[in-house]
Amino acid sequence: MSATIKDIAKVAGVSYMTVSRALNGSDAVTDETRERVLKIAEELNYRPNLQARSLVMNRKYSIGVVFSTLSSATAPSFMQACLNGIYQTLAKDYNLVIKDLERGLEHFNLSRVDGVIFVSQQESDDKFIDFALAQGTKLVVINRRVERESLVNVTADEVGGAARAVKFLIEHNCRRIALINGPAKIQSSIDRQLGYQQALSMYGMSIITDWVQDGKFSIQGGYDAMNLLLQHKNNLPDGVFCANDEMAFGALKAINEAGLNVPKDIAIIGFNDSEMCQFTTPALTTVRKPIEEMARLGAEALFALINQKHIDSTVHQIATELIIRASVR
Amino acid sequence: MSATIKDIAKVAGVSYMTVSRALNGSDAVTDETRERVLKIAEELNYRPNLQARSLVMNRKYSIGVVFSTLSSATAPSFMQACLNGIYQTLAKDYNLVIKDLERGLEHFNLSRVDGVIFVSQQESDDKFIDFALAQGTKLVVINRRVERESLVNVTADEVGGAARAVKFLIEHNCRRIALINGPAKIQSSIDRQLGYQQALSMYGMSIITDWVQDGKFSIQGGYDAMNLLLQHKNNLPDGVFCANDEMAFGALKAINEAGLNVPKDIAIIGFNDSEMCQFTTPALTTVRKPIEEMARLGAEALFALINQKHIDSTVHQIATELIIRASVR
Repeated sequence: MSATIKDIAKVAGVSYMTVSRALNGSDAVTDETRERVLKIAEELNYRPNLQARSLVMNRKYSIGVVFSTLSSATAPSFMQACLNGIYQTLAKDYNLVIKDLERGLEHFNLSRVDGVIFVSQQESDDKFIDFALAQGTKLVVINRRVERESLVNVTADEVGGAARAVKFLIEHNCRRIALINGPAKIQSSIDRQLGYQQALSMYGMSIITDWVQDGKFSIQGGYDAMNLLLQHKNNLPDGVFCANDEMAFGALKAINEAGLNVPKDIAIIGFNDSEMCQFTTPALTTVRKPIEEMARLGAEALFALINQKHIDSTVHQIATELIIRASVR
Repeated sequence: MSATIKDIAKVAGVSYMTVSRALNGSDAVTDETRERVLKIAEELNYRPNLQARSLVMNRKYSIGVVFSTLSSATAPSFMQACLNGIYQTLAKDYNLVIKDLERGLEHFNLSRVDGVIFVSQQESDDKFIDFALAQGTKLVVINRRVERESLVNVTADEVGGAARAVKFLIEHNCRRIALINGPAKIQSSIDRQLGYQQALSMYGMSIITDWVQDGKFSIQGGYDAMNLLLQHKNNLPDGVFCANDEMAFGALKAINEAGLNVPKDIAIIGFNDSEMCQFTTPALTTVRKPIEEMARLGAEALFALINQKHIDSTVHQIATELIIRASVR
């Protein structure tokens, strides 16, 4: 049984309220009293009851991390990078509470967290953003661009990254460039397809619908999509831009199985620069998206909001970078 | 502003205490009163204040998921499988709170959760287990075998899985079998090395220290460890058992770069059966460890503990299975 505020008050010969004020750093007690109370608290091995204290101070010592989905369309490496970036920024006495939106909003009690970092992946997430904002929740949205006045929003330049990848394929003599994309509702799919189209049209190349396939953001999906592309024996692509690395790994396998060579017959580029890219044969050229940095920036902004500190700018777009390896010759 | 218990009491013409008892299912009110109170609560659109209710009912509606580490030595696919298994089992009004032990125990307030699923990876975790048990925390330990009376413990048969993998290499004519292992302090490394040694000794083969390398459970670590093994040009291994899939991916890359062929020159087997195993070239023979199932079983047991239901058995060891693909000829 640990000591209570009452025990401290008794020993210090002051009121319960004075102890409480001293422990919580209120100006209403003298420095002398505060020091004495803190010393006695230490001697009595006092540990604050955080749950009770959180009710008094209106602090929950928890922040929510909300994903659109925790299973499908969220690659494990993406999820871990997000959680690591946030976790590293978290004060030690804070909890990280994980949620996804697939289970509906009815049980989403936002009063149980001090704020939310929302790793948003699709437009239908707007409903949750409006729900949270209407409740006055301190909210930071990362990963997907959203237009809300004064909402903190940290994203990466996905359109630009995709455009540079496809431009690189064109400059390396690819003329029939396919796109293996993620699910259509995911914003990253929309952005990466936009970049693909921008690059093609910049070089006056036409966009062929058959050459855009859904690879579901998974390895298996990329494999299946590539096999569909490989069926057109007389009109094979000579370059494939995959909207994430996992799909590129699947595509590489399909091309190998078809007896074709990457990059000699077909060049491939992925997206994200997950660790595995360095270790496929050939190593994968990809677009680096700094996921951990994005999450860290978002978490820092959320803590500034919670602590009512000034935030310089609410919208951050982090640059992406083409990482050149061996899957394009 | 939603209705309060006071509002309900006023409309129902009963005391605050009666409403509270009716809402919380106490026997101290008649069925008639309870029904009337619940009907009025519904009409007034009453939503319980979970944070306040949790203080009264001593329920926090949160369970903790604790990892030994969230960054090093925890592969993203392992972490996602654990979280998915637990999340699927979670009641909808429950929160999942993520922690790791790298930040120390001093800020670990176990009174903020109803129970803990501990994904234990190393022996030094025992300190946390004892700390939690001493506080009366409802605790389930998964992944690592721990000996504590009546503690719920869900593990996989790692020793048996490793032994079968190495036996398979021997039966397929490997005679110089190396081990690329995880960090020595991780229990899975200890178990998988034990299985490796059991199989070698079952066939009367000697264990050569130089052939056991630390691959840090990462792709890069597996690559580096394999390159060390490849330096002994006159005494190359003809089979490598890697204690997880990631290290096997790195080893495969190193063998390819050395101009050697898997499985012709060197056979490889991994561990876990993560999705990527099907998509390397050649596809990776591995040991399936049902991580998601292990996490689900653990979560079910924890909820039984929280709800004070009977638990049939406290120790579960889930079978592992050799998955034969193309990396052993």
